[in-house]
Amino acid sequence: MSYSEQFLREAIRLSEEKMKAGEGGPFAAVIVQDGTIISKGWNCVTSENDPTAHGEMEAIRKACATLKTFSLEGCEIYSSCEPCPMCLSAIYWARLDALYFAGSMADAAAAGFDDRFFYDEVSKPWNARTLKTEQALQNEAQKVFKAWINNPGKAEY
Amino acid sequence: MSYSEQFLREAIRLSEEKMKAGEGGPFAAVIVQDGTIISKGWNCVTSENDPTAHGEMEAIRKACATLKTFSLEGCEIYSSCEPCPMCLSAIYWARLDALYFAGSMADAAAAGFDDRFFYDEVSKPWNARTLKTEQALQNEAQKVFKAWINNPGKAEY
Repeated sequence: MSYSEQFLREAIRLSEEKMKAGEGGPFAAVIVQDGTIISKGWNCVTSENDPTAHGEMEAIRKACATLKTFSLEGCEIYSSCEPCPMCLSAIYWARLDALYFAGSMADAAAAGFDDRFFYDEVSKPWNARTLKTEQALQNEAQKVFKAWINNPGKAEY
Repeated sequence: MSYSEQFLREAIRLSEEKMKAGEGGPFAAVIVQDGTIISKGWNCVTSENDPTAHGEMEAIRKACATLKTFSLEGCEIYSSCEPCPMCLSAIYWARLDALYFAGSMADAAAAGFDDRFFYDEVSKPWNARTLKTEQALQNEAQKVFKAWINNPGKAEY
């Protein structure tokens, strides 16, 4: 597959429609498989009381529910804006093949969104971030990881 | 508030219980407000067919549903492992006050999880990542951002 303007334009159209409907911030995304849109997501953080409900996240969750799989290999995502680090990481976890976006992180920042600051924070080691963070009980967690490694019936992802 | 061992131990206990129940990977988290656990989340990626269903994400979504808010300011999260960049960014979006974790990213990597690779990718500019990425139609998205900026009734987050 390769970039198709109609899908990116649909993501932008949806971002405007849902923003005007009061769903949340001006962001939306669609996921395409074999030339067809299989899911649409839009920001509904404030209307759904869910800080994780960004356009890309919603599109990924809906596509996986429709296809009954946790892998979107073979699919591509079109987003009205460059994804924040949460959504970008979700795109990797979902194993999407490609990302096409319209607005930039600078555009989002100019509209008052924190994506750029979060990218800076995520890029730092945990003990250098502004978020208060502490580590403890590492050896107890390691025992659980060992049990995972030694579990022959596990479903990997 | 400050670190309390009982909550981190509960996150670790939950990670083991849910992994053994076949819910997903060995990860769980709890969110604490005023000394009380208000939500528990665990990885259910493979059982729920949702690549975004990490322990921290689930705990955040449940806490917000319970408190009927998109901001968890005043709350803290305890995670059985250092969060992946998706979950870390969600912690920032949720405005949590602090993060306490047990296992490290290296422990997760040794158990076969991709968190470290994703941190490396997220830290790069979009045109330097392994994920195929393209930008287009930026001016059309900018029009929607302008409409957001000029909307006096918007709910900010």
